[in-house]
Amino acid sequence: MNTISKYLGLAAGAALFALPAFGQDAPVEAAAALPPVPNEVGYIFTTFMFLVTGFLVMWMACGFAMLEAGLVRSKNVTMQLTKNIVLFALAGIMYYLVGYNLMYPGDDWTIPNYLGNFASTVLEPVGLEGTETDLTYASVGSDFFFQLMFCATTASIVSGTLAERIKLWPFIIFTVILTSFIYPIQASWKWGGGWLDADWGFLDFAGSTVVHSVGGWAALAGAIVLGPRIGRYKDGQTVPMPGSNLTLATLGTFILWLGWFGFNGGSQLYMNTAGNVADISRIFANTNAAAAGGCIAAMLTTMVLFKKPDLTMILNGALAGLVSITAEPLTPGLGGATLIGAVGGVLVVIAVPMLDKMKIDDVVGAIPVHLVCGIWGTLAVCLSNPDATFSGQIVSIISVGLFVFIVSLVLWLILKAVMGIRASAEDEVAGLDVAELGMEAYPEFSKSTS
Amino acid sequence: MNTISKYLGLAAGAALFALPAFGQDAPVEAAAALPPVPNEVGYIFTTFMFLVTGFLVMWMACGFAMLEAGLVRSKNVTMQLTKNIVLFALAGIMYYLVGYNLMYPGDDWTIPNYLGNFASTVLEPVGLEGTETDLTYASVGSDFFFQLMFCATTASIVSGTLAERIKLWPFIIFTVILTSFIYPIQASWKWGGGWLDADWGFLDFAGSTVVHSVGGWAALAGAIVLGPRIGRYKDGQTVPMPGSNLTLATLGTFILWLGWFGFNGGSQLYMNTAGNVADISRIFANTNAAAAGGCIAAMLTTMVLFKKPDLTMILNGALAGLVSITAEPLTPGLGGATLIGAVGGVLVVIAVPMLDKMKIDDVVGAIPVHLVCGIWGTLAVCLSNPDATFSGQIVSIISVGLFVFIVSLVLWLILKAVMGIRASAEDEVAGLDVAELGMEAYPEFSKSTS
Amino acid sequence: MNTISKYLGLAAGAALFALPAFGQDAPVEAAAALPPVPNEVGYIFTTFMFLVTGFLVMWMACGFAMLEAGLVRSKNVTMQLTKNIVLFALAGIMYYLVGYNLMYPGDDWTIPNYLGNFASTVLEPVGLEGTETDLTYASVGSDFFFQLMFCATTASIVSGTLAERIKLWPFIIFTVILTSFIYPIQASWKWGGGWLDADWGFLDFAGSTVVHSVGGWAALAGAIVLGPRIGRYKDGQTVPMPGSNLTLATLGTFILWLGWFGFNGGSQLYMNTAGNVADISRIFANTNAAAAGGCIAAMLTTMVLFKKPDLTMILNGALAGLVSITAEPLTPGLGGATLIGAVGGVLVVIAVPMLDKMKIDDVVGAIPVHLVCGIWGTLAVCLSNPDATFSGQIVSIISVGLFVFIVSLVLWLILKAVMGIRASAEDEVAGLDVAELGMEAYPEFSKSTS
Repeated sequence: MNTISKYLGLAAGAALFALPAFGQDAPVEAAAALPPVPNEVGYIFTTFMFLVTGFLVMWMACGFAMLEAGLVRSKNVTMQLTKNIVLFALAGIMYYLVGYNLMYPGDDWTIPNYLGNFASTVLEPVGLEGTETDLTYASVGSDFFFQLMFCATTASIVSGTLAERIKLWPFIIFTVILTSFIYPIQASWKWGGGWLDADWGFLDFAGSTVVHSVGGWAALAGAIVLGPRIGRYKDGQTVPMPGSNLTLATLGTFILWLGWFGFNGGSQLYMNTAGNVADISRIFANTNAAAAGGCIAAMLTTMVLFKKPDLTMILNGALAGLVSITAEPLTPGLGGATLIGAVGGVLVVIAVPMLDKMKIDDVVGAIPVHLVCGIWGTLAVCLSNPDATFSGQIVSIISVGLFVFIVSLVLWLILKAVMGIRASAEDEVAGLDVAELGMEAYPEFSKSTS
Repeated sequence: MNTISKYLGLAAGAALFALPAFGQDAPVEAAAALPPVPNEVGYIFTTFMFLVTGFLVMWMACGFAMLEAGLVRSKNVTMQLTKNIVLFALAGIMYYLVGYNLMYPGDDWTIPNYLGNFASTVLEPVGLEGTETDLTYASVGSDFFFQLMFCATTASIVSGTLAERIKLWPFIIFTVILTSFIYPIQASWKWGGGWLDADWGFLDFAGSTVVHSVGGWAALAGAIVLGPRIGRYKDGQTVPMPGSNLTLATLGTFILWLGWFGFNGGSQLYMNTAGNVADISRIFANTNAAAAGGCIAAMLTTMVLFKKPDLTMILNGALAGLVSITAEPLTPGLGGATLIGAVGGVLVVIAVPMLDKMKIDDVVGAIPVHLVCGIWGTLAVCLSNPDATFSGQIVSIISVGLFVFIVSLVLWLILKAVMGIRASAEDEVAGLDVAELGMEAYPEFSKSTS
Repeated sequence: MNTISKYLGLAAGAALFALPAFGQDAPVEAAAALPPVPNEVGYIFTTFMFLVTGFLVMWMACGFAMLEAGLVRSKNVTMQLTKNIVLFALAGIMYYLVGYNLMYPGDDWTIPNYLGNFASTVLEPVGLEGTETDLTYASVGSDFFFQLMFCATTASIVSGTLAERIKLWPFIIFTVILTSFIYPIQASWKWGGGWLDADWGFLDFAGSTVVHSVGGWAALAGAIVLGPRIGRYKDGQTVPMPGSNLTLATLGTFILWLGWFGFNGGSQLYMNTAGNVADISRIFANTNAAAAGGCIAAMLTTMVLFKKPDLTMILNGALAGLVSITAEPLTPGLGGATLIGAVGGVLVVIAVPMLDKMKIDDVVGAIPVHLVCGIWGTLAVCLSNPDATFSGQIVSIISVGLFVFIVSLVLWLILKAVMGIRASAEDEVAGLDVAELGMEAYPEFSKSTS
């Protein structure tokens, strides 16, 4: 971990160097008196905004599926697709049954500020008939829809790391517990108004920590318990196991890039004033800038390190930029956002071989992208948002990390002991598609023998 | 058909069992007095909502194309793609020339309540200049755009069933007549305010019957006239003919899932009040819940029946859930929606082998998904919406079914007699791509010999 | 060029024949007095509209990537993907650093009406705090986001034409200059209020000339300097080099079709009144009609010319329809829009072999689609918009064309002289993926030997 710290230090330094580019961009003049938007109009705006940004985040589930299907070998593609669509469906059910109220308990905490409320989700009545609806926010249905997609994203992150060797059922069970308990509980600490929010002033706008690092920690625990793929590390060398379809990986990346506008933009949570919609605009622009920065930085870094640009690194660089800006997509200027993303793009190129050195086999690079850059992004809030404190950010990163990593580790170990989590060596070599599912993704095309 | 009824009966029973989970969720209190949204603001909201949900439904055309391209063998992929994009374009032209006014005649029925108005579509003038526009609804252009996409969806459903053996031109001619006359005429009976709406109180929120079963009936008629693919049924067994690309099939399913938020959500038809936008939110959440329920139910059913989860069934299960909730995505609670979808997911797994037993060869499973679950969904309205009557639903299902099936059957028989609808045996074995189009979808990759 | 003119003349004639179908559709009555939408509400509407249409245009970058990846041979797919994602990222950075203010200088022209302002983009402050915001338009962030995507589209067009033989680095450098200077400068002449707008009344609603022809001219200059692929023209014949994956090409086309609703619809620039949102609706409907017209026209034309429908031509026909309607998607009626698109669909089928006769090797047909139909669409404005003048359109087409073609030609020649722009013959035959990137897109599948 020392090495990680060192690199993080370097990265933070690089960003600080660029500090003048950060912060608010335009001169501050006398505030204008804006006429108020009627409550109901504001309610419609914010609700519709959640629906639109929510369907963009839903689309990310497809992005992860395509990215991962493209980065695994063809003999494991059907399994990867199965996991991705099933985990999305499971998140939909579990978040309704348990997750949403556990995450947003309002005044009904089971253990105040630490453990939310165990109750399934109830939407408003049809037509809001017979209710005294508070029109200052948005409909419950739209809020639930939007937040559900964040929960599903967390689960999507895990599937990529563990690809090509984990059995279907333990993965499904882990997903159920992740989306029912692990994700919602820690998310309640910040977004449900729990202790990290109340006591530590933790700032994580759209979830570099709350979503991305959580997926990353759960994946890391799984990867450690599961071990690397057969033949992955040989004589101290990492044996390349190239993805079967880079077009799919690129498609997935573009989908994620698109979906991220919803992920970050919707996290403004309000669109009922000119100020809010202008902020959402800033967020869209900054999110794109960070992805662009990450993409180009990763390309340049691979040129320097490997003499050739590397498409999978470029794709992961764009995603790294997106994760990096997620904790604070609002307050940086466009230059700051580009640089925050660029640092993420560099980090990911450095972190991938580091993980391999530790023999942690992460098939799609989810840990570098979502965990490493999730941490970086959370720290980077301090660069542009004066309300952030370094201590609050660090304590939150560590608290969430310890909670998720330890619970996940224990859970993976239990699953390993009870039912086994790893496919047999035979099945792994044959490919999970034929072995576990009896169904190939590309039955008519010649197959790898690797 | 007895067997179908039996299964439907079982399914309905299963759902009724879960009845307490249905209906409106929250306690009814005193109604709040909401300040009215200005007419013009409401008009902008509703119009923009149609444009956004309309483009989501347009996206479903791509979803069908990908789903079908993934589920046919590679030798027929170019043909399947050609049919899908051409049918979408044809729908755009025919619905403008004939369909829209035939479906929404207003006061200008040719035969009142049975046959609409033959006139091509005229949009409002630019800038609404010089018109007394009624601002209580939405622009004609946005309504036309949204409704056109439903017409196109109907045509998309047909193409999958008949894949791998139908010739291009008869398919094109059928599509022209389907989108010009068959779809709009029956749709006018409900959505144009015709006899099923006026006399029977038929409820079909977004078209389990009006769209999905119609596509299914037309496909069924075609499949019967066309006959199964060569070698599909041998010695009383169904010979598997696996799809060439499950990643594409998964991509298509995710696209359809996404597009369905527009399909069902936009069918609220208004977004000019807090109640309406809250209802659209309910619909989004319920639509997702039903898809999740169908997906997981299909997975579990295939586990029980085949001992292995089956990805193509899981994908069709998600779609089955979506079709099932389409007739009433508003009134169920999240639990009810999940169960309605789950029943659909079970039905589809049961219906696929049943069809094969009847030697009806449905390449992509469109009849189980869109017809069987379309019927189920239409009946399921009675479970959560007190305004629905079982008789009204049944009469409508049967009336629409008879009309579409008979007209389609006659049309397919005429096309068969006049020009032939089936590719020659040689062409079918060689693949339609090389035989009819002289163009392979994947020319550089090894090909199937099946 | 004579031949082009002849064909354009024919096309214009065909369209004029259909003139009664053009123009405003509905009778003009007394104007209604509409109650005004409050400024802040209008600001939220327009800003949100830019964000939604902007993300649709962003999605087109993925459409181009998929289209091009599908139309190149598999040995060049990784390279094509790399170029597409990198160019999109570069556009994001360069348009922020240079392009946006060069294109929209406001009152700060460097050379009035000819050369904009060299300054990087500054967004409004967070929450619009402390500013006197003009609420009659939209947020700077949303406008920047939307306009950026147009700049990126221009760059995407170029990459397809030059595929399979251009080296990565000169392409990247060209992209940087195109997105920093070439595109923004000429765009300022019209959309920034420059001389073509002020002195010539040039009308180009969403950029048939400003975006599409610009991409086409830059591509044409590149194709001339670069020369055709090895073996493309032999004994006066064009040797077919079929794309490796028509499903991807179809996916890309559907994505572009979807994104185009944002491209044209968002170019209305306002959604703060009933008239504006009704206009956006007209634009959505017309855009779809033109794509449908182009698609069907291309299918019929290929039937006549080649006896078989040709999927790649059908796809390009849809895109041709979209480019053709882009200069004026508002004023035509649905019939007019369909015909304008149809002419585009015919033009593209004619132009592809014409280019080949001139030994200009355009791998994906971007010049016929974006340049030829861009010109046609710009001229077609005169058919339905009485404010357009033939002279204003012609002068603008020629001025923009000369500027972009000459600057691009010089730039390509400089790049050729300084660093070489063409891969070595060996690398080209081996494929750029292995030669330049050391990474195959489909490593497990059998490869072409062509």
